[in-house]
Amino acid sequence: MADPRPARLSALAEGLSAAHVDGLLVTSLPNIRYLTGFSGSSALLFVTQRDALLVTDFRYQTQVVDEVGSIARVTIEPQSLWTGLWQQLAHLPGISVVGFESGHVLHRDFQRLLEGGGRWTWRPTLDLVETLRERKDAGEVAMIRDAALVATTALARTIPQVAVGQTELEVAGLLEHALRDSGSEAFPFETIVASGPRSALPHARASGRRIESGDFLLLDFGAQVGGYCSDITRTFVVGRASAEQRGIYETVRHAQELASRQVRAGMTGRDADALARGYIEQRGHGELFGHSLGHGLGLEVHEAPRLSRMADGTLPVGAVVTIEPGIYRPGWGGVRIEDDVHLGADGPMVLTEFTRELVELA
Amino acid sequence: MADPRPARLSALAEGLSAAHVDGLLVTSLPNIRYLTGFSGSSALLFVTQRDALLVTDFRYQTQVVDEVGSIARVTIEPQSLWTGLWQQLAHLPGISVVGFESGHVLHRDFQRLLEGGGRWTWRPTLDLVETLRERKDAGEVAMIRDAALVATTALARTIPQVAVGQTELEVAGLLEHALRDSGSEAFPFETIVASGPRSALPHARASGRRIESGDFLLLDFGAQVGGYCSDITRTFVVGRASAEQRGIYETVRHAQELASRQVRAGMTGRDADALARGYIEQRGHGELFGHSLGHGLGLEVHEAPRLSRMADGTLPVGAVVTIEPGIYRPGWGGVRIEDDVHLGADGPMVLTEFTRELVELA
Repeated sequence: MADPRPARLSALAEGLSAAHVDGLLVTSLPNIRYLTGFSGSSALLFVTQRDALLVTDFRYQTQVVDEVGSIARVTIEPQSLWTGLWQQLAHLPGISVVGFESGHVLHRDFQRLLEGGGRWTWRPTLDLVETLRERKDAGEVAMIRDAALVATTALARTIPQVAVGQTELEVAGLLEHALRDSGSEAFPFETIVASGPRSALPHARASGRRIESGDFLLLDFGAQVGGYCSDITRTFVVGRASAEQRGIYETVRHAQELASRQVRAGMTGRDADALARGYIEQRGHGELFGHSLGHGLGLEVHEAPRLSRMADGTLPVGAVVTIEPGIYRPGWGGVRIEDDVHLGADGPMVLTEFTRELVELA
Repeated sequence: MADPRPARLSALAEGLSAAHVDGLLVTSLPNIRYLTGFSGSSALLFVTQRDALLVTDFRYQTQVVDEVGSIARVTIEPQSLWTGLWQQLAHLPGISVVGFESGHVLHRDFQRLLEGGGRWTWRPTLDLVETLRERKDAGEVAMIRDAALVATTALARTIPQVAVGQTELEVAGLLEHALRDSGSEAFPFETIVASGPRSALPHARASGRRIESGDFLLLDFGAQVGGYCSDITRTFVVGRASAEQRGIYETVRHAQELASRQVRAGMTGRDADALARGYIEQRGHGELFGHSLGHGLGLEVHEAPRLSRMADGTLPVGAVVTIEPGIYRPGWGGVRIEDDVHLGADGPMVLTEFTRELVELA
């Protein structure tokens, strides 16, 4: 596959022209990884119409050469990345107005720009690289698909090991162990294992609560491959499901299936959200679906676009988004089902293949 | 044990007077947790001489009541935390000059302060809460000790399961599983499993490399209990250690022991760093110890104070710090040994009890 980075840098160069800046200081590490391939935890990147300069520290001396190659000029800075940046910038001709990422620069570092970088004019920009990242290319989709396969493989291995009496933390341990054995290079976010009444908390993590017969058991977790994330949720019943549990489950399942099939590039995030929300409201549970339908994912587990009641923006062709409706009844329990869906030009494609039927754990 | 939060808020009130501000907007989540007990992922806190106001969203409606109690006035804001903040602030009398955390406010949000909060004068502050957090009270030390015990228990369970031919990712899976079974509520940072030549990379994560006989195997990981972190490193030899491996190992071990025994509150971070560095330099390996000796830990795995060649500040009584010298020979391998040490008034106390002798894994 062709190296995607030159096209990304060209697209960004167009963004610089539109934003009327001579260059952009990129401080977001996922943005730096997207543009240059560098995966270290310490770097500054400066991009102009012609040049890309990367400053990192001695710990990444070997890694940066392997990852970045000739796509950017690399400086290893022994003291402070900022000192290295000022030195490099001083040698670039024709740079006067410089953009910075307003959403990825702390006020403290903004002060550095004004002081150390006082000879340039600094202009805040928003989402110049994030907008490019919304549209995934074939290589990126393949990577997210790999991460999805790691996640579903791990889930399939974990389910037979779950038993009444285990704590949520123990179940998290089984699942995370299976994720590592399946090749996940990291955990993109903290594993959620929520049982019984705790499944009604959309932001529960794992706790010391022991699983009981009759519980809902909600697992929300992800895998990472080549820097790209997957994010999946399944909710099980421990033992036999009651009629009430089955009713709530089937409502969520149907809403999730509707939205996964009907979501399209070109819709607004609000219209996508309404696909599932409309059905849940129609079934009388609208009040119990308190969060948004989903979010983009890629190098970060939460990125653009948003699928929510407040999202005016249009879903672009090539985005990968989560579709994750839920119904949460406080004190009783909740159900969420989540898949990762690629919005191709010819329709949506689900990347996380794992049964959505109600599974009763023995 | 008495509730530590009122004393923390009083100490902060003194800091506000010294900084000549009528109130402080706290945006750092660990700082918010320290002052109020709230552990959610979305909140703004406003503290004055008399009041503490916390704004969070509907997802935390139940949790915030349990955690915060009466220590702060809580508002649940349905739309934007910032909108909620402006409404609350407007009702506070006598507030004119307001501090904000320069190291925890993005430029984008700084713009919000100037726009939505235009009727107040905003003044950047640095480390007002972080400075308080450096000195751990008995309850905090007990929590870090618990997290240390979880980590060492997990390590003891993992070691007998490690075998030649496993990948680093598989070893990470074994270790993380044991951490969960031992009660770790989260992983404070990405587990490092680095074998053979990869042990020479101070920032290696786990990879697909298979462990071979003769390798160094370096494990750097942590546990979390009640929000508090531990951070420990041990380096093993797979099979029989060569004389060269043993020589490097014993140099690191001796340097680490020296520093753990001699580090004291009242020293500068630089002098603490020199305790280990001096010995390693004397043995001719100074060039191969490329990072600093350690860092504070608590609610975050990296916090104040620093122990490094650049750290002028004094280590305060009550700090908990890591002591983690290493020697890294590129292409060959590296050794790091790390403990968590409490700096009491009467000397240092190691919290991570696990053998530091050279262990050869069968």
